[in-house]
Amino acid sequence: MQSPPHAILLIHCPDQAGLINTVTDFVYRNKGNIVSLDQHVEEEQGVFFMRIAWEIDQFLIPREKIGEFFHTLIAEPNQMSWQLHFSDIKPKVALFVSKASHCLFDLLQRHLTGELACDIPAIVSNHTSLAYIAEQFDIPFYHFPITAKTKAEQEIKEKELIDELNVELIVLARYMQILSADMCGSYPNRIINIHHSFLPAFKGGRPYQSAYDRGVKLIGATAHYVTSELDEGPIIAQDVAVVSHKEGINDLKRLGKDIEKRVLSRAVYLHLQRRVLPFGRRTIVFD
Amino acid sequence: MQSPPHAILLIHCPDQAGLINTVTDFVYRNKGNIVSLDQHVEEEQGVFFMRIAWEIDQFLIPREKIGEFFHTLIAEPNQMSWQLHFSDIKPKVALFVSKASHCLFDLLQRHLTGELACDIPAIVSNHTSLAYIAEQFDIPFYHFPITAKTKAEQEIKEKELIDELNVELIVLARYMQILSADMCGSYPNRIINIHHSFLPAFKGGRPYQSAYDRGVKLIGATAHYVTSELDEGPIIAQDVAVVSHKEGINDLKRLGKDIEKRVLSRAVYLHLQRRVLPFGRRTIVFD
Amino acid sequence: MQSPPHAILLIHCPDQAGLINTVTDFVYRNKGNIVSLDQHVEEEQGVFFMRIAWEIDQFLIPREKIGEFFHTLIAEPNQMSWQLHFSDIKPKVALFVSKASHCLFDLLQRHLTGELACDIPAIVSNHTSLAYIAEQFDIPFYHFPITAKTKAEQEIKEKELIDELNVELIVLARYMQILSADMCGSYPNRIINIHHSFLPAFKGGRPYQSAYDRGVKLIGATAHYVTSELDEGPIIAQDVAVVSHKEGINDLKRLGKDIEKRVLSRAVYLHLQRRVLPFGRRTIVFD
Amino acid sequence: MQSPPHAILLIHCPDQAGLINTVTDFVYRNKGNIVSLDQHVEEEQGVFFMRIAWEIDQFLIPREKIGEFFHTLIAEPNQMSWQLHFSDIKPKVALFVSKASHCLFDLLQRHLTGELACDIPAIVSNHTSLAYIAEQFDIPFYHFPITAKTKAEQEIKEKELIDELNVELIVLARYMQILSADMCGSYPNRIINIHHSFLPAFKGGRPYQSAYDRGVKLIGATAHYVTSELDEGPIIAQDVAVVSHKEGINDLKRLGKDIEKRVLSRAVYLHLQRRVLPFGRRTIVFD
Repeated sequence: MQSPPHAILLIHCPDQAGLINTVTDFVYRNKGNIVSLDQHVEEEQGVFFMRIAWEIDQFLIPREKIGEFFHTLIAEPNQMSWQLHFSDIKPKVALFVSKASHCLFDLLQRHLTGELACDIPAIVSNHTSLAYIAEQFDIPFYHFPITAKTKAEQEIKEKELIDELNVELIVLARYMQILSADMCGSYPNRIINIHHSFLPAFKGGRPYQSAYDRGVKLIGATAHYVTSELDEGPIIAQDVAVVSHKEGINDLKRLGKDIEKRVLSRAVYLHLQRRVLPFGRRTIVFD
Repeated sequence: MQSPPHAILLIHCPDQAGLINTVTDFVYRNKGNIVSLDQHVEEEQGVFFMRIAWEIDQFLIPREKIGEFFHTLIAEPNQMSWQLHFSDIKPKVALFVSKASHCLFDLLQRHLTGELACDIPAIVSNHTSLAYIAEQFDIPFYHFPITAKTKAEQEIKEKELIDELNVELIVLARYMQILSADMCGSYPNRIINIHHSFLPAFKGGRPYQSAYDRGVKLIGATAHYVTSELDEGPIIAQDVAVVSHKEGINDLKRLGKDIEKRVLSRAVYLHLQRRVLPFGRRTIVFD
Repeated sequence: MQSPPHAILLIHCPDQAGLINTVTDFVYRNKGNIVSLDQHVEEEQGVFFMRIAWEIDQFLIPREKIGEFFHTLIAEPNQMSWQLHFSDIKPKVALFVSKASHCLFDLLQRHLTGELACDIPAIVSNHTSLAYIAEQFDIPFYHFPITAKTKAEQEIKEKELIDELNVELIVLARYMQILSADMCGSYPNRIINIHHSFLPAFKGGRPYQSAYDRGVKLIGATAHYVTSELDEGPIIAQDVAVVSHKEGINDLKRLGKDIEKRVLSRAVYLHLQRRVLPFGRRTIVFD
Repeated sequence: MQSPPHAILLIHCPDQAGLINTVTDFVYRNKGNIVSLDQHVEEEQGVFFMRIAWEIDQFLIPREKIGEFFHTLIAEPNQMSWQLHFSDIKPKVALFVSKASHCLFDLLQRHLTGELACDIPAIVSNHTSLAYIAEQFDIPFYHFPITAKTKAEQEIKEKELIDELNVELIVLARYMQILSADMCGSYPNRIINIHHSFLPAFKGGRPYQSAYDRGVKLIGATAHYVTSELDEGPIIAQDVAVVSHKEGINDLKRLGKDIEKRVLSRAVYLHLQRRVLPFGRRTIVFD
């Protein structure tokens, strides 16, 4: 049932003729069986994107040399940016939370049932209210209380923890602290946040109140990579639900939780499947 | 098959105990058979809203006196704002268009097949490109070319036409001129516009370009009553469609047309069914 | 913040003029403040439905007498079927599960955060795999292993438990046993099941396989009251998600879980809010 | 603005290593610039699918020889089924209608504004009610009245017309006649029908009545290729809309029209873009 290990290569570079051929040729000649290939050309800017996955059990180049060979033979001559991943290596993910439990539960339940291919070595929080959930799921809980004064030093400790645990991805699962520009800059395209509105509408705080006041007929949620500009990072996933005048603010919050859960989980899933390629303020999502 | 004529009453007033009872009593004692009743309380502001419809064929108060009696006996003592409509009186609707035909066709097709209970005595445009459609559907076409200089005087002529034709509702079916504050103010809650984004995101011009640049994963459209503040009027209907990196700007425009068509037609339908009660920046839609 | 206790009355009866007035009059004269009123007439069959909620803190009739008074004064003369509930009395709900944990987790998380106004005195299963979740959430777990031979006697024990615990609602949260006709008949409109297809498509077993084989472009889930006819009970809630050829069976199952979770939770929420009125094979859902 | 002409190749064959490489190599070596490539492997049955499009203005093989060369060099050795299309050749489409106008109008409006890249040389009907629309849009209208007795001979005449006009695709835009097995068999994967339910639910006649009776909370529409088995052909597109107890049969029909319009138009668009690959009862849709 377990599929054989794959190499997954994500590429982007200036567009030119023959790129698909060049890459598939590299895989094929070295006895890799391509299991999926997606490509996209952003015509306005002339940029080529590609995701290719192949079985490596018969591949002529040893797994630890694939990156080096690809870089020298293919990437450098074609000015490619690239990432290489292996399907049998589980990345480490840290979950940052505050007091709301819905996204945390949802992620942990999916992890438990094998839907999210990762390890979760840490739940980090500026509060202790959700420590019991970490205990329920037997995951180490780290408490970093944050005030305006302590923020800088606490972030340093958080970064030490992340580096020590070898965390690849940070998920802000309704973490109610704005990360400093330094923190954002330390993990480019490695922090996913869920914002509780359909961005770019209702940036910043209290989006449900703003949605109520504006009288919108849809509410939404947005999962995006975090950049130093608040709520402006590349969007990975969005969804909405229909609402009406009947829903008061508390109903919007209740209905919104459902959207937040599924949008955040979907974004994390796509990231872990190596299907997301951020590019400027946009993402290419090969789903 | 034709249902007997109904009176439809839309009400709002400060909330207090007994309002439903007061109104249903007025209808019932005078031999009106209630066919539908919807109510809503906006708890934050303590406002009561109601829509009630009843058959008037046996009603003791003659149709032309219902308003007066209701006003004196019920509305005034309870500080109610109210509108009274009759299901067998078709309002007159003017369609304003520029060059895009999709919303116009959609509205005319629905009108032709009896879905929109109104008369359409005029198609108004600042261009002549869609005159042929008016001719196809045998509806008078009025051409008011507009430049920065002529705008004010042309709007005066438009208003004369609207008043002369006894138009109740103006539908901006992708009409690419911004109405003056004076024009907006002349027809409060009587002008419906379709904006090609999920407001409040991407107000103003070129929303599909902005949506593309921001990399959103959903595009939308919003039908709203026009006020003097651009794209800020009370929202009647909204919808969205899923998009991905694969869609270029032209694809967004193409997919957006579908959303625009159905959102605008739905808003016009709801208005004509007397199901929309604007209140501040919000609408109560009894659908 | 806590709203004062409400009485909630659900009614249906043969349609006739004056019903709304009769009921609102009963509430108003006895000093009840109506907080919501919904009504519906099923025109084909001439049936009137109503849900009315009012604050009872000032109500002249004591809470334990409301049913009797309403029955004698209003219901009997108008041939009404009715149910009376109070917003401050939490019904008891038993969750039946087998091996899949997603719906169970979702319900428990919502319960924990106060979204579902009920008590959960029992998790019942024909397996022991999910006992650890019951333990996590500190809820008694009852194991009733079932074989073809033991089914009848085990159902008797389950019924004893349900009656002993005073359970009002049974939720089949991906419970993989078909209840006997006797069991179904013992709890009419008191058992909610989640079926993993958009009924009436793909009734019975293996709906995702069937959906895959038929090549549908949408998959869905359906929450319904259980009757003795398999997958034929009145539908409370349904939803779908878009799929494509890219999704294999396992992807359909994974995506389907999300739909199942939200559709089942929504149905349970609506039931607990006393917003669902089953009538024949249909439901009136006053949401 | 006009993009240069593309060749579009649709392929399926038994899966094996190296297929992507083989095909891209054929294009690349002959100086074709690949503008898009999609592939899919149906793992259960081991079938490989591909759609590849390339610019042909610099292609070494002349356009009229591409098929022959591809067949000999690539397709035959790999047991490929294939179709070759050119983006600058507009296929001819015949629209079959009865009395309902909504799908017809929608298709014609899209055609008029350039959204559907085809010619429409004929509107065919068993009634004359929609002849006026054909006239409006200046398209020849053919009336073939059909009774149980005349059906066979009328279909022969229809086929003569289709062949004479060189029609590639027949669109049943709410055409209320069931085509004979012979007629279906004459145009495999060349007839698209819109069925007014989310198949496989509510096959056959009166689906809205059945949906109403079953009390579903969603209604839908399905566009599919026509086969001799009624409503069993491969599905191209589906969509749904939320409904409630409030909608009577006429409301379902009204709301359903919107779904039918957009689903049928989408299916026709995808077919004309050469994005649909039928395979057994399923379709691969490279959108």
